[in-house]
Amino acid sequence: MSSTFGTYFRVSTFGESHCKAVGAIVDGCPPRLELTEADIQPQLDRRRPGQSKVNTPRQESDTVTILSGTENGLTLGTPIGLYVPNKDQRPGDYKTMSDVPRPSHADYTYQMKYGIRASSGGGRSSARETIGRVAAGAIAEKWLRIHHGIEIVAWVSTVASITAPEIDLDCVTRTEVDETIIRCPHLPTAERMIAAVSEARDAQDSLGGIVTCVCRKVPVGLGEPVFEKLEARLAQAMLSIPATKGFEIGSGFGCVALPGSRHNDPFVKKGDRLGTRTNFSGGVQGGISNGEAIYFRVAIKPPATIAQAQRTASFEGEETILEAKGRHDPCVVNRAVPIVESMAALVLMDAVLAQRARGGN
Amino acid sequence: MSSTFGTYFRVSTFGESHCKAVGAIVDGCPPRLELTEADIQPQLDRRRPGQSKVNTPRQESDTVTILSGTENGLTLGTPIGLYVPNKDQRPGDYKTMSDVPRPSHADYTYQMKYGIRASSGGGRSSARETIGRVAAGAIAEKWLRIHHGIEIVAWVSTVASITAPEIDLDCVTRTEVDETIIRCPHLPTAERMIAAVSEARDAQDSLGGIVTCVCRKVPVGLGEPVFEKLEARLAQAMLSIPATKGFEIGSGFGCVALPGSRHNDPFVKKGDRLGTRTNFSGGVQGGISNGEAIYFRVAIKPPATIAQAQRTASFEGEETILEAKGRHDPCVVNRAVPIVESMAALVLMDAVLAQRARGGN
Amino acid sequence: MSSTFGTYFRVSTFGESHCKAVGAIVDGCPPRLELTEADIQPQLDRRRPGQSKVNTPRQESDTVTILSGTENGLTLGTPIGLYVPNKDQRPGDYKTMSDVPRPSHADYTYQMKYGIRASSGGGRSSARETIGRVAAGAIAEKWLRIHHGIEIVAWVSTVASITAPEIDLDCVTRTEVDETIIRCPHLPTAERMIAAVSEARDAQDSLGGIVTCVCRKVPVGLGEPVFEKLEARLAQAMLSIPATKGFEIGSGFGCVALPGSRHNDPFVKKGDRLGTRTNFSGGVQGGISNGEAIYFRVAIKPPATIAQAQRTASFEGEETILEAKGRHDPCVVNRAVPIVESMAALVLMDAVLAQRARGGN
Amino acid sequence: MSSTFGTYFRVSTFGESHCKAVGAIVDGCPPRLELTEADIQPQLDRRRPGQSKVNTPRQESDTVTILSGTENGLTLGTPIGLYVPNKDQRPGDYKTMSDVPRPSHADYTYQMKYGIRASSGGGRSSARETIGRVAAGAIAEKWLRIHHGIEIVAWVSTVASITAPEIDLDCVTRTEVDETIIRCPHLPTAERMIAAVSEARDAQDSLGGIVTCVCRKVPVGLGEPVFEKLEARLAQAMLSIPATKGFEIGSGFGCVALPGSRHNDPFVKKGDRLGTRTNFSGGVQGGISNGEAIYFRVAIKPPATIAQAQRTASFEGEETILEAKGRHDPCVVNRAVPIVESMAALVLMDAVLAQRARGGN
Repeated sequence: MSSTFGTYFRVSTFGESHCKAVGAIVDGCPPRLELTEADIQPQLDRRRPGQSKVNTPRQESDTVTILSGTENGLTLGTPIGLYVPNKDQRPGDYKTMSDVPRPSHADYTYQMKYGIRASSGGGRSSARETIGRVAAGAIAEKWLRIHHGIEIVAWVSTVASITAPEIDLDCVTRTEVDETIIRCPHLPTAERMIAAVSEARDAQDSLGGIVTCVCRKVPVGLGEPVFEKLEARLAQAMLSIPATKGFEIGSGFGCVALPGSRHNDPFVKKGDRLGTRTNFSGGVQGGISNGEAIYFRVAIKPPATIAQAQRTASFEGEETILEAKGRHDPCVVNRAVPIVESMAALVLMDAVLAQRARGGN
Repeated sequence: MSSTFGTYFRVSTFGESHCKAVGAIVDGCPPRLELTEADIQPQLDRRRPGQSKVNTPRQESDTVTILSGTENGLTLGTPIGLYVPNKDQRPGDYKTMSDVPRPSHADYTYQMKYGIRASSGGGRSSARETIGRVAAGAIAEKWLRIHHGIEIVAWVSTVASITAPEIDLDCVTRTEVDETIIRCPHLPTAERMIAAVSEARDAQDSLGGIVTCVCRKVPVGLGEPVFEKLEARLAQAMLSIPATKGFEIGSGFGCVALPGSRHNDPFVKKGDRLGTRTNFSGGVQGGISNGEAIYFRVAIKPPATIAQAQRTASFEGEETILEAKGRHDPCVVNRAVPIVESMAALVLMDAVLAQRARGGN
Repeated sequence: MSSTFGTYFRVSTFGESHCKAVGAIVDGCPPRLELTEADIQPQLDRRRPGQSKVNTPRQESDTVTILSGTENGLTLGTPIGLYVPNKDQRPGDYKTMSDVPRPSHADYTYQMKYGIRASSGGGRSSARETIGRVAAGAIAEKWLRIHHGIEIVAWVSTVASITAPEIDLDCVTRTEVDETIIRCPHLPTAERMIAAVSEARDAQDSLGGIVTCVCRKVPVGLGEPVFEKLEARLAQAMLSIPATKGFEIGSGFGCVALPGSRHNDPFVKKGDRLGTRTNFSGGVQGGISNGEAIYFRVAIKPPATIAQAQRTASFEGEETILEAKGRHDPCVVNRAVPIVESMAALVLMDAVLAQRARGGN
Repeated sequence: MSSTFGTYFRVSTFGESHCKAVGAIVDGCPPRLELTEADIQPQLDRRRPGQSKVNTPRQESDTVTILSGTENGLTLGTPIGLYVPNKDQRPGDYKTMSDVPRPSHADYTYQMKYGIRASSGGGRSSARETIGRVAAGAIAEKWLRIHHGIEIVAWVSTVASITAPEIDLDCVTRTEVDETIIRCPHLPTAERMIAAVSEARDAQDSLGGIVTCVCRKVPVGLGEPVFEKLEARLAQAMLSIPATKGFEIGSGFGCVALPGSRHNDPFVKKGDRLGTRTNFSGGVQGGISNGEAIYFRVAIKPPATIAQAQRTASFEGEETILEAKGRHDPCVVNRAVPIVESMAALVLMDAVLAQRARGGN
């Protein structure tokens, strides 16, 4: 287990799907930030199960309590304890799975790695693990917004074969994103996505998708080459989210389609700073933010847990048919949106503090 | 700067393009590994400039010396100092660049972040920085091969619009990869790639590409959820390599094309262990290796430094034309191959030691 | 703040004197350790306030709950969340202190460092902070006992001018230590110590002392030179405990009294292993355990908070008289005993796992 | 091995007694610091063997080269490679030791921990390992002096039974310290110390001593509770130096002699800041610097390697007589002086950057 993220703004998370609580400790949050549970709860609400018909009907309120680190609504500079009780524990639903590792889930690898695993749900590989991150990310995001005006907005750009037309990176807002339950800000596309997910749910199947994220007004100079280049930390952060299979920044895999003469981003004067005419770089050059919008995409696989019968093998190697019970998400991309935003906030926050230590910012 | 990678097998690198030397310290290498410079030099040779006509004609022998940490050809368990002198220093070539940050290079961001930058070459953002990693990776790779039989093979699968047909992940070897200078093991494709690079070089332009990598015989159980999942560390490692724009593992971004019922990898008995029939997961489930081949792809942009004239702006914001001098790579994908392998080895090595600390392996 | 200790067995603590709860996350605990609250509570009970007349009469039950990381009484290998609610909150007692930093307490330095401080009690500098460490240490200790038979016993060897005669390092047990409330296993000395503390309490004063600790049956080979030598980590661990002023191992400061010819510990055969005839080294040589008993001493100052009137200055620099209210410890050495043991356990646990990663043990 | 120290100003060292070179990488040094080898060499000269008759006659020039990280005499913010070749390699001197571990040296523990050890000299446990620290510390010290006016001065306060009268912490300078070869600024005492060491040398014996260190003009607010309290990091730093057995800060072990009412440091106005009338705290309260002088003492044992015959046992457990050959130090306290200063500088530098990251300083 390595459940700590960040060096300067350090988040340690705990909790699995069916234990007493999940949460996190945030160490290194600068003092005197105004902070109450109300700053954190909205992102948890966007993450929680049961929020819409494209998600699992399982209900969890996921109400956060700040245990320490603040007084009279101000951070003290001491570790912030974050606590979310697990309410809806229905381990019974998972009982029939115990002899058979769920395909493309973590049952088998956890069992082999640790010699033991949580008997129900996904244990630590469950999406419930992300609650601590989202809570911590909300704190980072508030600080980044107040101190640098940084805006982080993620949305669903693809579900299965349905891809939204290009979204304006400079303008898109969370309000627009949240207009539909699937969190695609292009409404006609959103409707088709929702229909596709409904169809998959009815077919006891699941769908994957892509979350795109933009970070605006990021100051120049963030990112710590060579191993903690900004894009390297973002890549780690995103691939640490359950169910992710890919990360690309700026032109991404599409960079191969252009020769250098067209892929290069020429510099131009933008007000009193230097900017770039194009932004194939995605806001980072040499691992360091250049003041342009940082944007990246995260591939999210179709949820592994499906109600459809699957031919697979038991732990002992015997062929068998697995039919998952329980209440599962036919698609998790809309719930991934606040998780992607939170991890981006954690990466940026750590990078800002690193640069402050150096004497910049 | 954050020039240390790994927790258990910890590599710290130093050096920029035109200083006295580059190198690394490897701390945490298990004792009693047979190790001499001959174990390290081959991967440095595959990385070095001047190795073929698709690369820069700049020649550097990049000869490594082990300064410490071994005696009589055995590691002592103490830090291994690795030293490679910089021989071909021609700072004059870069002089005209000084007022104008090269587009899509790191001149601008380094200057803004540090308030200073190396006056010639790419400084720390230069590919010379990767020498320390490759040397360290060769040590990790030797240990992994001896102790676990792990095989790591990377190759060029795409250059610009030219993509090789699927390569057999179970069989491909470095010998096959090295049959052509472009390091694509499908020979007819390799020839077309080489022709394309030659054409780009003649046009004073550059081309990007994709490196695919497979890690075979990786034991089950590697990877430290939740923030150091195996794919998260691989993603960080790959995006820390200069010029990379994307990472995907297993089905990657293609995961959206399939519903869960087809994307899931059903378990099957394979000899005395459990395997999976398909391998969309790419050898990892829940952030932990499952015993199947780990494979991933890394997008590498066309080199930013091109001889072609570019309209851009100076640091002061004045429009100008930049014509790079010096001897540059029209394509770096073939040189990226050993770098990708080395970073993969560093990730696996750290993960193996983490799992040993836990009591597994 | 840096509230994380350890690399392999990583403890992150949270909580201050008067917030909702204190606790810790333990990441990296090996799986399949039998663990319930009953393994942790005894050391918390030995640490808690109100346990005897030599301590503050303030009562806290300090009851721990395991929030995550175990199932059916076995650790899962996932982070263990530890939670202790703060019950006895009486911030009113501290109100008059707010303008005047308490001498030799952390009011002034916290205010200057963070620009804010907890309005009551010691905030994060309070001894309540140690609850998370003690809970985590109890887990480490259980693992060390089961897997290596390691025994850790600390006791009070000095209070003010009263020093116990030499205690037999090979035999002393916690049962003997706990025979008196002051935790000095030499009973006649203990009585004199208790009398001295009572006298100090009556005089509204406080007394310091020394805690000695022995770790027996520690395997040869623990400690990671050069910066994490075993004694270096022990020193850090002990000096991180509130109110400590010194650390010495083996001969300690007394090492100057002997020439090398007498201070050296000659090797002798002990059963099937090599031991040393004397043990001035204190069980470590070159930063690595040598199989002999590890013993060290920790100096603990007289508690800074005393009821006696003190002439001092306010934050604004005005001379004033401070009379502390509240219920304070006239001496904390007996409560420090389990804290010292816990920190020793954390150091040893981390060192064991580091050595396992290397392939030893 | 854990050969990295510091989080923000991160030093990684390499090298053992008889390999090709020793040195370090300094990562995180702020850019634009004026730096050449001339800033580093003086402390290496104060550390080097052969500097005086109280030390080993073995000569090493220990000349440092900066390999990377600077250009035109300014730091670039990139890793600084530091390189010192090992010149005087005489492994033959140590040959007879190979079957017999030297008492109180690290031969036995290294062999047991790593299953191998350097065949000659102390390998990584040799004092040569400290060269990298001293070089790195000189860089930190220069930055601290320029940016905060911090002064760090250490001296020998005790050799064997000879203790200097109290030295004025506010005034003592390195020039005064260096007036005698033993580095005790009280000249009559220094003479007696030198005589004692000469006598010990003639008797083929060795002597221990105590180094005292003061850090002046340290800004208020340094130190990261709870596990990286300033005194905790200093303690770790000092106990990581070879041959150290104890650390105490401020009143240290003497704190037990006073009741709280007399041990507390009352606050007084000092110019425009708050100071303390006494300084039993040693400049730290609650793990954070309070603006008063930080002073601490380090116990250093008599060198283990003596020419005198010693009755001991071989690795196989057979009784034997060991007579060390080679050229050894009868006392190392004067050489420890720059090492103590360097480690103090590394601790303060890391703490300053941590506090800058938070937004202070």
